[in-house]
Amino acid sequence: MKPSDIVSDSQQRHVKGLEGVIALNSSICYIDGGKGALVYRGYSIEDLASNSNFEDVAYLLWHGHLPLENEYLHQELAHVRDVPKAVLEILGKLPSDFDPMAALRTGVSLLSHYDPEANASSPEVNYRKALRLTAQIPVLVAALARHRHGKPPIAPLITGTTAENFLYMLTGDQPTKNAIQALDAFLVLHAEHGLNASTFTSRVIGATLSDMHSAITGAIGALKGALHGGASTRVMLMLLELQQSGEDPREFVLRKLAAKERIMGFGHRVYKTLDPRAGILRNMLVELGNEVDAKRWIDLCSSLSRTMDEQKGIRANVDFYSAPVLHILGLEPDFYTTLFVMGRITGWTAHLLEQWEDNRLIRPRAAYTGPMGLKL
Amino acid sequence: MKPSDIVSDSQQRHVKGLEGVIALNSSICYIDGGKGALVYRGYSIEDLASNSNFEDVAYLLWHGHLPLENEYLHQELAHVRDVPKAVLEILGKLPSDFDPMAALRTGVSLLSHYDPEANASSPEVNYRKALRLTAQIPVLVAALARHRHGKPPIAPLITGTTAENFLYMLTGDQPTKNAIQALDAFLVLHAEHGLNASTFTSRVIGATLSDMHSAITGAIGALKGALHGGASTRVMLMLLELQQSGEDPREFVLRKLAAKERIMGFGHRVYKTLDPRAGILRNMLVELGNEVDAKRWIDLCSSLSRTMDEQKGIRANVDFYSAPVLHILGLEPDFYTTLFVMGRITGWTAHLLEQWEDNRLIRPRAAYTGPMGLKL
Repeated sequence: MKPSDIVSDSQQRHVKGLEGVIALNSSICYIDGGKGALVYRGYSIEDLASNSNFEDVAYLLWHGHLPLENEYLHQELAHVRDVPKAVLEILGKLPSDFDPMAALRTGVSLLSHYDPEANASSPEVNYRKALRLTAQIPVLVAALARHRHGKPPIAPLITGTTAENFLYMLTGDQPTKNAIQALDAFLVLHAEHGLNASTFTSRVIGATLSDMHSAITGAIGALKGALHGGASTRVMLMLLELQQSGEDPREFVLRKLAAKERIMGFGHRVYKTLDPRAGILRNMLVELGNEVDAKRWIDLCSSLSRTMDEQKGIRANVDFYSAPVLHILGLEPDFYTTLFVMGRITGWTAHLLEQWEDNRLIRPRAAYTGPMGLKL
Repeated sequence: MKPSDIVSDSQQRHVKGLEGVIALNSSICYIDGGKGALVYRGYSIEDLASNSNFEDVAYLLWHGHLPLENEYLHQELAHVRDVPKAVLEILGKLPSDFDPMAALRTGVSLLSHYDPEANASSPEVNYRKALRLTAQIPVLVAALARHRHGKPPIAPLITGTTAENFLYMLTGDQPTKNAIQALDAFLVLHAEHGLNASTFTSRVIGATLSDMHSAITGAIGALKGALHGGASTRVMLMLLELQQSGEDPREFVLRKLAAKERIMGFGHRVYKTLDPRAGILRNMLVELGNEVDAKRWIDLCSSLSRTMDEQKGIRANVDFYSAPVLHILGLEPDFYTTLFVMGRITGWTAHLLEQWEDNRLIRPRAAYTGPMGLKL
């Protein structure tokens, strides 16, 4: 913390942005930025990404333990994937220049009007709502991605994983094994990340004893902010620009560094040495890129990453490799943050379930710095 | 703070719900709970309620000073009151058992898709969005109140105040002077109240550099919670029940107190002696009630309030008198919190403008209390 970050008024001092201030206890996620460690419910992200899948991770986040033999989520999610026709119709009428995150925020808010338990609340009810939102959000995202091009939505399959279903709903074609695996890994890596601004938003809203749809609508709004989500979109725009200009990637990095311009996708506010998610996604990119003959993205990314490491000792983060993976999977850059939501909905809802186990209104105070004693 | 409110983990202590923790500086609102003082930008709420009006208070909250001669907001608001037809059509198709706060949340999220500056950001742009939302939200609320009864929306007048317009849009009839005055006072009293949970929500979302519609959508979701908005709804349900049963109000209070049951509309988390807004609204109730021959509500409220004061020394709060005022104005109980939004939109947006003047991501941290070192 820099000395300028500590603000004092006449009586009291505080830390801007509550940085480092502990707001609550949580048993969901442990992050050690110095060591590059990310842990969900006691399991390392490397272990989960290699040996688990998105549905099991969702179960783990919600229940605190991995599913037993007969507790797999795939079928439960498949049963609640249907989105009311009225919601899809409304989204299908939004002006076609819609912002995907704004549209998803509207879509989730709309879902509540058709949710049989929208205003009900109990641990069981809220768990069912978490399941429904996790199942329905990919349906909304796929429908929006198609609506932009004037195409009608495709109904989900009655079986299959979240990743498989989503890729199928995008095009109507059965996705390849590598594509499913890459998206599944992306979802696992984005499922949870402690008390970030959108998760904190969802807990602040939930702590008023508002409903899950309200909390998630707010969380989507927070993730939409440029200081939170959206980095992978900016990475892809950079990669596309670089590809189009034909500039040598090493020259590009040197030129940007000389001009003191920011290069997207490097370094991380929390992970000071290594973002543990980056390497995992890089491996996915290599497998996927080889399969669909998109090796140019691997070469481009490798060259950028090598030069940044050599020049500044700064490593690529998860957003850097998310961009080409999602590009190869057929997503447009401004949709990337909605894919982030498809993963993070599990973390947000796990935090809400935890919040409501032992609820307390979250309400800090402001130090007043304005005038007093004015009269009309 | 009770000792049990301080939670310790292995390394650090924190206060549950960040109660009393200073999150930021603000020059918008000063509250002294002990003295029963509420001050907007240096002016006491009593002074503003008696000698000002909702539009001037909105201007004060946004600009930090009262409007000069030619800066009145009425006409500016009238120019931006139009809600896109598509939004009203969508709201008009919601299932008729809609929750008004959920529907308003959806409505505000929808407005962004038609806002010419939805994703733009500068102090001027954000001020214009604050104006538009303040002008449009009453149009949405009136349309929803009519939609519930299968009635089409009524277009706003091209002149007149927010209070006058809203009452007109509810029925199509010109409201009386007393009715306008009572609603105007209600809006002034609800315009701002420091860093409460919904205002904090809007600042947390805004601090990610997300857009104003996202922040307000989140704030509406927070205000929807039972621990935040909604108290006046519960007061009215109590008053209606009491009226229907015919039970003597004094007997009712004594019976409830003996059974240790809560009586809605008394006491306040912040104001330990007196809620300064209560008396102001009580006066409005008296004038309004005399005009429309609704003196029974005054008598009922007076009797309840007198008995509570005599038995427990607890005074009625702003929600207690909001309920009969809004009832007499023709609102259904579950709509009351949407009226709260019509006032508070000015405080929320003032806080957002202030947040963006010197922005910092708001992101406290959680203390991890879960397992470590598990393996798949």
